[in-house]
Amino acid sequence: MTTATTHDLDALTARASALDATDPLAAVRDRFLLPEGVVYLDGNSLGALPAAVPPVMADAVHRQWGTDLIRSWNDNAWWEAPLRVGDAIGRLVGAAPGQTLAGDSTSVQLFNALSAAVRSRPGRELLLTDPGHFPTDQYIADSVARLFGLEVRRVPPAELPDFLAREGERVAVAGYSPVDYRTGELYDMAATTRAVQRAGALMLWDLCHAAGALPVRLDELGADLAVGCGYKFLSGGPGAPAFLYVAERHQAAFDQPLTGWNGHAEPFGLSGGYAPAAGVGRGRIGTPPILSMLALEAALTAFDGVAMADVRAKSLSLTSFFLDCADALLDGFTVVTPRDPERRGSQVTLRHPEAYALVQALSARDVIGDMRAPDMLRFGVNALYVTHGDVLSAVRHLSEVVNSGEHHAERFQRRTTVT
Amino acid sequence: MTTATTHDLDALTARASALDATDPLAAVRDRFLLPEGVVYLDGNSLGALPAAVPPVMADAVHRQWGTDLIRSWNDNAWWEAPLRVGDAIGRLVGAAPGQTLAGDSTSVQLFNALSAAVRSRPGRELLLTDPGHFPTDQYIADSVARLFGLEVRRVPPAELPDFLAREGERVAVAGYSPVDYRTGELYDMAATTRAVQRAGALMLWDLCHAAGALPVRLDELGADLAVGCGYKFLSGGPGAPAFLYVAERHQAAFDQPLTGWNGHAEPFGLSGGYAPAAGVGRGRIGTPPILSMLALEAALTAFDGVAMADVRAKSLSLTSFFLDCADALLDGFTVVTPRDPERRGSQVTLRHPEAYALVQALSARDVIGDMRAPDMLRFGVNALYVTHGDVLSAVRHLSEVVNSGEHHAERFQRRTTVT
Repeated sequence: MTTATTHDLDALTARASALDATDPLAAVRDRFLLPEGVVYLDGNSLGALPAAVPPVMADAVHRQWGTDLIRSWNDNAWWEAPLRVGDAIGRLVGAAPGQTLAGDSTSVQLFNALSAAVRSRPGRELLLTDPGHFPTDQYIADSVARLFGLEVRRVPPAELPDFLAREGERVAVAGYSPVDYRTGELYDMAATTRAVQRAGALMLWDLCHAAGALPVRLDELGADLAVGCGYKFLSGGPGAPAFLYVAERHQAAFDQPLTGWNGHAEPFGLSGGYAPAAGVGRGRIGTPPILSMLALEAALTAFDGVAMADVRAKSLSLTSFFLDCADALLDGFTVVTPRDPERRGSQVTLRHPEAYALVQALSARDVIGDMRAPDMLRFGVNALYVTHGDVLSAVRHLSEVVNSGEHHAERFQRRTTVT
Repeated sequence: MTTATTHDLDALTARASALDATDPLAAVRDRFLLPEGVVYLDGNSLGALPAAVPPVMADAVHRQWGTDLIRSWNDNAWWEAPLRVGDAIGRLVGAAPGQTLAGDSTSVQLFNALSAAVRSRPGRELLLTDPGHFPTDQYIADSVARLFGLEVRRVPPAELPDFLAREGERVAVAGYSPVDYRTGELYDMAATTRAVQRAGALMLWDLCHAAGALPVRLDELGADLAVGCGYKFLSGGPGAPAFLYVAERHQAAFDQPLTGWNGHAEPFGLSGGYAPAAGVGRGRIGTPPILSMLALEAALTAFDGVAMADVRAKSLSLTSFFLDCADALLDGFTVVTPRDPERRGSQVTLRHPEAYALVQALSARDVIGDMRAPDMLRFGVNALYVTHGDVLSAVRHLSEVVNSGEHHAERFQRRTTVT
């Protein structure tokens, strides 16, 4: 990285304009209600508001809840929402209908999926996860291992093939993410799935940072289980319901601990004994938060007619351009995200010792990214609404902040909770 | 029950008017947006829409999510919502602040609470529940018992004292509801809590049919654990977040299996090892559905300045009046709900072999109750918005339906899912 000349800036500005002018997804940006003047590069934490959401929410509150009341479970098909929304997510992650459901949080879905996986592999005593995995994945893995008397081994993705070759027959299930949430590194889902399954273990994918961000082909990969959240690249709203994928061949044996009445074969038979529903519907637990569920459903229409291949192409164009801007305009940062596009998710992460204050100072300029302790600045790009102009603007602001030292101001030092 | 005379009807009409005219909660009805012409006696399944909800939801969607975006976790205090809403519910169930949190579904909260209870009573091999308990309570009890190697015993509330006297020292936890969801029978929470605790077991109350319906005094009772839902008498919206109460003295040892990152002592430290937060916050799991959470928070303001003693007095007035109307106007029904007010929750249940068709025919007349298989018609009264006039109207319509036989019409026979 080096100090920019005016010529560099002019060239980058021209390139941003040209790339945005020929962007096949340019019109999709209008499907989101973005605040004026804000550069939003935190859609990997909370997706922006899709324009389809407000009218649906107003209808859900006034007509469905207020007027139709309890009858909405039938008349407005609330009861079917988890499976209907699940199928809509399934379309974005390569899952044929009837294998995905929406509901609860990622943590809860992880618990059910890992527990069911362990139960389906009796006698195998290891549960694998990534030491770099998002904390909740590690916590839930530890909890499930404790409950069922297994042992968690934290094996980095790069070491997984060797580990499986050595001890694969002891492994019940491996829970991994295709994208490192801090660095944005993208792993090879197909190779990992094959290696885990060759060992006779089940593969559980956490798609929080992949669903809606890049093409995922669960059925084609022969994936076993997957979970993911609804509020990042799916833009389903704060704390939107998560999702669970159970490959059809595993559904009949899927034996979860959270045996809520919504997953019963005859939920209104009110029998005192549990009998799971057929299909992925057995993964249902309690009554889902319908308002949040309908917001997620409306949000997913932003993907209507959008090919995930186009999303991926634009995402890579955005992150590549980000790296070029960073190379030209920034000093004192280390690029953490792989430069090889094949190994890059939909974010760029930079390392800087003053990451916290820099992100705060950027936010004061209405450029929103986030940070992950201790020193990583994360910039997520959602190809549905981020432009190359946004990317250049973000890097220019970051350059101005760091060069001027304005992030040293007292108000940017205070530690607050930032998700 | 007998055939009514015009004189009976006139007298009942006059009594309804008089009771409604002197109702100290009459003005509270205006805090709800009830559809014109509908008699809504199903608030024990889905509470009506509080008027405070729509503006809060519009703000949550447009300003908080759409404009403030990720910053809302701090700036609009999304992060604190589960504890803030929990305390608001705590006020209605006699819990001092810091012991109640909102989130997830009742089924999930039951799973965490029962599991933590079992872990705190090692060596005790029985888990007690009511054979008449709502199915999900029984299913989750069975699941927790299976996981931890315990045995579930289904002991009706009336037999609980004898059972505990005989086998109490083997019991880890007893999970009961103060109100039978089918019959509306109210049990003695204080006596049950004492009997269970005298045996050295933990008492877990499911307050789904009590919270917001009648005074509950968790702290005063010395209750151990409680859960409940947000969408019945609390009117928090379809699938509103549930709640969990952990008495302060149990919090430090509360050891739940769903160790999601929101319950971590330092959720943003991103440590790979779980360390539970202090206080009831350790009961948090994953990221909560904020839109549904904020709807629930707004809904709870309908209770502002309302004394639960007044709610109870009006509820009993409504159900007593319902029974009088039924006695005067209905033939062929059996009253299931206890006539003794001390033993009555906030609903009236009638038995009739054609319950399903009758409820459908009533719904066609915009009188909404529900049924529970095989033959129970349930009519819930939420004292915040139901009037004595509503009650009389419901019983009159029911009388007209059953006397005319209009429920025999083909369209009322089809079986659909009704919650």
